Amino acid sequence: MDHVVVMAGGSGTRFWPESRARRSKQFLDLTGRGPMIRETIRRLFPLLRRENVWVVAGEKDAPHLSPRALGLPGRNILLEPEGKNTAPAVALAVAHIGRRDPDAVIAAAPADHAVADERAFRAVLGKGLRVAGRTGRFVTLGIPPDHPATGYGYIERGNRFAGKEKNVYDVRRFTEKPDLAAARRFVKSGRFSWNSGVFLFRADTFRDRLSRFLPVVHEAIESAFRSHGKREFPGRLRAAYRSMPSISIDYGILEKERGILVIPAEFGWSDLGTWRSLHEFLGKPGENVTFGNVILLDCGNTLVRADRGLVAVAGMEGVVVIRSGDAVLVCPRIRSEDVKRIAEEVRRRFPHLS
Amino acid sequence: MDHVVVMAGGSGTRFWPESRARRSKQFLDLTGRGPMIRETIRRLFPLLRRENVWVVAGEKDAPHLSPRALGLPGRNILLEPEGKNTAPAVALAVAHIGRRDPDAVIAAAPADHAVADERAFRAVLGKGLRVAGRTGRFVTLGIPPDHPATGYGYIERGNRFAGKEKNVYDVRRFTEKPDLAAARRFVKSGRFSWNSGVFLFRADTFRDRLSRFLPVVHEAIESAFRSHGKREFPGRLRAAYRSMPSISIDYGILEKERGILVIPAEFGWSDLGTWRSLHEFLGKPGENVTFGNVILLDCGNTLVRADRGLVAVAGMEGVVVIRSGDAVLVCPRIRSEDVKRIAEEVRRRFPHLS
Repeated sequence: MDHVVVMAGGSGTRFWPESRARRSKQFLDLTGRGPMIRETIRRLFPLLRRENVWVVAGEKDAPHLSPRALGLPGRNILLEPEGKNTAPAVALAVAHIGRRDPDAVIAAAPADHAVADERAFRAVLGKGLRVAGRTGRFVTLGIPPDHPATGYGYIERGNRFAGKEKNVYDVRRFTEKPDLAAARRFVKSGRFSWNSGVFLFRADTFRDRLSRFLPVVHEAIESAFRSHGKREFPGRLRAAYRSMPSISIDYGILEKERGILVIPAEFGWSDLGTWRSLHEFLGKPGENVTFGNVILLDCGNTLVRADRGLVAVAGMEGVVVIRSGDAVLVCPRIRSEDVKRIAEEVRRRFPHLS
Repeated sequence: MDHVVVMAGGSGTRFWPESRARRSKQFLDLTGRGPMIRETIRRLFPLLRRENVWVVAGEKDAPHLSPRALGLPGRNILLEPEGKNTAPAVALAVAHIGRRDPDAVIAAAPADHAVADERAFRAVLGKGLRVAGRTGRFVTLGIPPDHPATGYGYIERGNRFAGKEKNVYDVRRFTEKPDLAAARRFVKSGRFSWNSGVFLFRADTFRDRLSRFLPVVHEAIESAFRSHGKREFPGRLRAAYRSMPSISIDYGILEKERGILVIPAEFGWSDLGTWRSLHEFLGKPGENVTFGNVILLDCGNTLVRADRGLVAVAGMEGVVVIRSGDAVLVCPRIRSEDVKRIAEEVRRRFPHLS
């Protein structure tokens, strides 16, 4: 049966002041439609039963993970004792799913990405699950790049894969965030996709590769699950997490795996990595995008949010102005990356506002 | 005896969101030294006894006019039933002062201007009082212009006045805010000063000119004062104010008067007309000026205020960012004049925040 694991363990500072130490991006309502994690789950429901949608997140985020708000059974919300990046998170989910459904085919997807064309997204997700189920291979979803972005990983495709489904390719290589010259070459070549961060696999494949490539993680999870359903399970899981390295699926498994497939597909994807990319996701080029009580006079290409009170902006082009709680951020949208530096400065000088 | 009347009846929107309908500029602490009206009074004390410093303001502003906070006797704080511009305000003060000191020489000064060199200011104020007292003429203080400002009125001087004091001139004419070409001519000619808004006169001269140029105002005030000290005085004064036109000293008296004198003097004066002029008064060219909890990363030439919480600005040049109460303002400093338009928009759309 098909399952999706929503990976919600991240913590970030790139949406300060909206995101804070105790409120990570996946729990924010950045688009005006609701918290990102809820949107991520909601868009899966036409494809999957609620029982087959899982969330893995940190214990510290439990207050944001009400089953009622997320529309999931409580036992599908899996809490990690501490964050150890994506490989342990997915391993934990696969162990839980495997006990209920040994033949599971699983898609793991970030909780904090945005999708404009949900129908197209579900179509390619269903296709990916079919391909992963039939072939036993890891499958990734690639986004056709429309500009030479330097903030994304890229996937280079090789030959067309000779299967039942069309538009499936062998992966030649994964590339981390490139410099601008490389990104330009990638886009020009026509052979590269952005890495959407969604990957799909059969549970048996995953367990096999985990035991080969990350045996410490595999053993720790297996050992804890020997007491699953017993009183000592939480303590054992905590001990297992203490013993595991912090490692991503990409480094820990995908870079070592051979025969990975990629399905390039356009579904209006954005990782919403910065205020700038949120602005680009929500508005047409040059448009003003506002939330809350906002007055704009002679402004263009701005993103302005007021969670309370009023924000008034006059005569500004290409700026981001965010009022959230006690804090206000003002910066040019092309400098959205600097928000991390600001958040660090806030943590140092005004820890109660970080 | 010498007296000063501090004119505190103004209401303005050019410092929104710091200034609001119920908190006018003269009651704001814009420079970090205290409310402007308190600064205006404090800088007079080395020159005058407290009993000789008077405030005229609107009844609605009584909450901002505690005698203890201002350092004045309660009876020196004169409340107008309604605002009718400066001519009635000064007429009211002169009527009060004249009952205590028929030979008064009076300087009328705005409550909301800034002075960097207080010693120089007091020296020229003292000189102005002496000249006004001896000659019985109206005297104005002119500021040597250091750039062709279009936001100020100008005073053109004529011949040197042959009196005991040096550096006193006949006024040839007053000019309202000029366009840039005219302002450039004025500055180049060397004959023009900015109008500082301070003017000095003997009480008897003022009463004489008021009765000739503004007989309606003169009669209304005289009539009310016939019941001064009696229970019906407040009601009579209210009736007098209802009957008076709203008119400034400049239009009502100075433009009609002949023989006015001007004393040009540099004392680091600013009318603090906009956020931009506040910035220029407080900082050297290009400097960042901040108040409250502010983080700046790679910014220049900015004015940033946080009355609470935190304001963080990155990568911006020449902007004004003001957080005050429920509201946030962001605009280029060279567009500070637009704040009036924003305040109007706020009043229309969010009246509780205006």
